[in-house]
Amino acid sequence: MRKVILFITSSIDGYIARENGDVDWLFTDQDYGYKDFTETIDTVLMGGATYRQVLGFGGEWPYQTKNSYVFTHDASLRSNEEVTFIHHDVPEFVKGLKEKEGKNIWLIGGSQINTVLLNEDLIDEIQLFIHPVILGEGIPLFTGSSIETWFTINGIEEFDTGLMKLVYQKK
Amino acid sequence: MRKVILFITSSIDGYIARENGDVDWLFTDQDYGYKDFTETIDTVLMGGATYRQVLGFGGEWPYQTKNSYVFTHDASLRSNEEVTFIHHDVPEFVKGLKEKEGKNIWLIGGSQINTVLLNEDLIDEIQLFIHPVILGEGIPLFTGSSIETWFTINGIEEFDTGLMKLVYQKK
Repeated sequence: MRKVILFITSSIDGYIARENGDVDWLFTDQDYGYKDFTETIDTVLMGGATYRQVLGFGGEWPYQTKNSYVFTHDASLRSNEEVTFIHHDVPEFVKGLKEKEGKNIWLIGGSQINTVLLNEDLIDEIQLFIHPVILGEGIPLFTGSSIETWFTINGIEEFDTGLMKLVYQKK
Repeated sequence: MRKVILFITSSIDGYIARENGDVDWLFTDQDYGYKDFTETIDTVLMGGATYRQVLGFGGEWPYQTKNSYVFTHDASLRSNEEVTFIHHDVPEFVKGLKEKEGKNIWLIGGSQINTVLLNEDLIDEIQLFIHPVILGEGIPLFTGSSIETWFTINGIEEFDTGLMKLVYQKK
């Protein structure tokens, strides 16, 4: 069955963005395996806050060649050719997606949807890119309502900039 | 000059203990380099909450052969043959310690003293033992008042249980 992969960056202290959502601290000097990864997936999932952040970057929708699903309580958002909005029954929807044929599914974030899918045991793999920085505050990987969940490690990669990639798989 | 080393465990999501201080989720099946590490240090530093937790484990003071310093606002605590309590001027005290001859200094934690010393640029190295678990909530590595601080990576070690040791050094 296709996997849901949380492919995400964090600081040493576990933050995925500053409090205001800024990710200006992320390394952009190399590809860090991004292009290869995007060729293994055909679908992206994200929450409403992450969606608004992606829109805020301006320009074209960056996932044009993928099936894009955005989970949001904002019922005023209408699906279009680029994005399908899902307003309820999120775990059931993702279970359904996993049963369809296709490449893997990229869970982009953020904290809220990560936690919903973690708690439903729907995250199969985490590819975590730890940047060598203590941010001190910010948006955490998962929210405080996460259920304790154990993984096995399935690969590490060290980059010359000090970025560490850790790959965790569901036990 | 001797180094201050934060040798500490965390979850994938950056917690060093559960909300109530519990560390029942830590692996205890192997030594994970603990004994070798303790031979490189002759001094331990910790905050008041960590001190109370160590006392709560019962038994003898576990750092009998080390110089133990506890930073606490509780002026009722009187130094004894096992522990010296430091009630003020913590950064100056640690700077003074570093200038003395001796082995390295183990900063045990927790969040508060980690942050005080990070913000004074007094943490020379972090040896972080990431357990393969999402806890979801708990006591963070550093508190929200930490100053953004960058490190370089200086070693990784992977254990068969999925525990990852990352060694970071001050830039």
